[in-house]
Amino acid sequence: MNYVKLDIKDGIGTVEFFTEQSNSLPGEILKKLADTITEAGNNPDVKVIVLKSGGNRTFCAGASFDELIAIDSPAKGKEFFMGFANVINAMRKAPKFIIGRLQGKAVGGGIGLAASVDYCFATKHTAIKLSELALGIGPFVVGPAIERKMGLSAMSQMGINPDEFYDPKWAHQKGLFGKLYDDVASLDKAVNELANKLAAYNPDAMAELKKVFWEGTDHWDELLAERAETSGRLVLSEFTRNFIQKFKKK
Amino acid sequence: MNYVKLDIKDGIGTVEFFTEQSNSLPGEILKKLADTITEAGNNPDVKVIVLKSGGNRTFCAGASFDELIAIDSPAKGKEFFMGFANVINAMRKAPKFIIGRLQGKAVGGGIGLAASVDYCFATKHTAIKLSELALGIGPFVVGPAIERKMGLSAMSQMGINPDEFYDPKWAHQKGLFGKLYDDVASLDKAVNELANKLAAYNPDAMAELKKVFWEGTDHWDELLAERAETSGRLVLSEFTRNFIQKFKKK
Amino acid sequence: MNYVKLDIKDGIGTVEFFTEQSNSLPGEILKKLADTITEAGNNPDVKVIVLKSGGNRTFCAGASFDELIAIDSPAKGKEFFMGFANVINAMRKAPKFIIGRLQGKAVGGGIGLAASVDYCFATKHTAIKLSELALGIGPFVVGPAIERKMGLSAMSQMGINPDEFYDPKWAHQKGLFGKLYDDVASLDKAVNELANKLAAYNPDAMAELKKVFWEGTDHWDELLAERAETSGRLVLSEFTRNFIQKFKKK
Repeated sequence: MNYVKLDIKDGIGTVEFFTEQSNSLPGEILKKLADTITEAGNNPDVKVIVLKSGGNRTFCAGASFDELIAIDSPAKGKEFFMGFANVINAMRKAPKFIIGRLQGKAVGGGIGLAASVDYCFATKHTAIKLSELALGIGPFVVGPAIERKMGLSAMSQMGINPDEFYDPKWAHQKGLFGKLYDDVASLDKAVNELANKLAAYNPDAMAELKKVFWEGTDHWDELLAERAETSGRLVLSEFTRNFIQKFKKK
Repeated sequence: MNYVKLDIKDGIGTVEFFTEQSNSLPGEILKKLADTITEAGNNPDVKVIVLKSGGNRTFCAGASFDELIAIDSPAKGKEFFMGFANVINAMRKAPKFIIGRLQGKAVGGGIGLAASVDYCFATKHTAIKLSELALGIGPFVVGPAIERKMGLSAMSQMGINPDEFYDPKWAHQKGLFGKLYDDVASLDKAVNELANKLAAYNPDAMAELKKVFWEGTDHWDELLAERAETSGRLVLSEFTRNFIQKFKKK
Repeated sequence: MNYVKLDIKDGIGTVEFFTEQSNSLPGEILKKLADTITEAGNNPDVKVIVLKSGGNRTFCAGASFDELIAIDSPAKGKEFFMGFANVINAMRKAPKFIIGRLQGKAVGGGIGLAASVDYCFATKHTAIKLSELALGIGPFVVGPAIERKMGLSAMSQMGINPDEFYDPKWAHQKGLFGKLYDDVASLDKAVNELANKLAAYNPDAMAELKKVFWEGTDHWDELLAERAETSGRLVLSEFTRNFIQKFKKK
């Protein structure tokens, strides 16, 4: 059963999402995810936010293929991709630090989520793949978030090689991940440790620092909407139709 | 015999340049190179461009010393350096991905070419040196392209150390190269593999992605022209005259 | 006895600062440091500037705790943090390259100094810690300089983990340091070698290249003043008072 939930304890607001398709994201879950992040950002009991997903394997497989294949107009296409834009913008605007907790692979839009947290912990199983171009679209909505964290070169290397899984050490070296852990137990220990520390720091200082981290991104409401429009148009291409049909037959 | 040529096969447009002085670039070859890249960009049979140079050793030794020494006015100086500006701008504006194939060393302007492709493969012999300051000039025209790919720190480290060859692993780590290979055979295999994949992807998606990769560089027509003017003025300094005379006597 | 001094020899202007509290910086020394850098920048006998600190251990421990604790109004807070802003802006505007020579640890504002030189040499003992958030403030004034050299991800990783010393190899990989040395003797040899080379290069070319390295930072006079205001306000928080009192009792 797909879900998004928020647990608040000791000043730490943990946002967890889950879907039965390797945590790939349909529009409904994207909307709940954006809303839940905004809610945690506004709740005075929450001093720091942790973003995680359910299950022991994939952190997030990106966009839901079932929804991509169902898109039949540019307007519906834009609407779907706005789901990712809204999650990224919610993370950007939440006046609190967000810690990412990645137990395993992140693909496509999943990398966009990882890039939009303020500090990301991952395991040594967290390979990443920016698969969009192989589907006939591109990492348009998530591109700015990935470039901001990893730089233009890393973002474009991944974007141009949509079949390749980049290993977690590379993602760490490029700045997507702050720390890598051998297993989920040590990952959770590290996440809790930092979350507890941050929950006790000066909230005013953290709110100001969050603004500094995101300085120069005020135009992302418009930018990501334009990007969603581009993806929403390209997803209607024959190329995309054929790719998804082939994939689903596997 | 110096040349620039374009071969088109299976959607892959291969642009190859060669000069008898270690692939250092005189104005005439720079002009042909810019024009050929633009031509490949406009040709509907070309889906992806590969940029390479002839010979088995140096990818590109930078500016032609014979031409630098012949410059006798600021106007001629600017004109010469505009040659590099025009090649970089041609690569930037071509609505197709450009793959770089570097068999060996890249010096000065040669690093500018490597930095302006969209994905760069190199061998483990591809050391790089940003030699301009040792000549009394500076990496003004190529600076923006190098900074965009490698960051301000790497660009300035090289610029301030014009005698030092930086090794290919460093250049890879800094994002100039996407992959390094042991020898030319494995280099060519990798270039062909990616070029063939890209030739089959959705061209609309690639054209949009190319725009995204180069977002924020619309002012480079003016910026690189200003930079060419700076280099064109500095190249007339006594410092530069003396350096080139000494070099040519070796 | 605290001091800032300038020695000029063979075209190399060496600026050295020292305080008896691990080279932590009170307002008076910050003012002298900014003035001395500006003086070296304007002196035609100086072709290149070296920035170092006295003693064999810590390069710079950041802001003076004695002065932080004495701040009793937002205006005095801003004034104190403007000390760091003025040093960074003096380094930025000096029309000559500045080489950093770091013998040991850099903390808080000390990382800001290291990030504002044009090329930084360090020893393998130069661990760095961006400690501000632990004090209830944040790396607001030094943030832009650190982000410019190390990127947004490295800056934010350090800013969000104020208790953690990051090792010199990491700082090297992220671009803060250009080269690392085993001991102070090899550090000094390398600094002298580069300083002597730069002292002999074309001064016009270096002045133009310095402008290029700092392009896009013209607004830092205003930006760093705003940042100083933020730090000056946060330093009055109870959180900061308690932290410093506890620290001083140790």
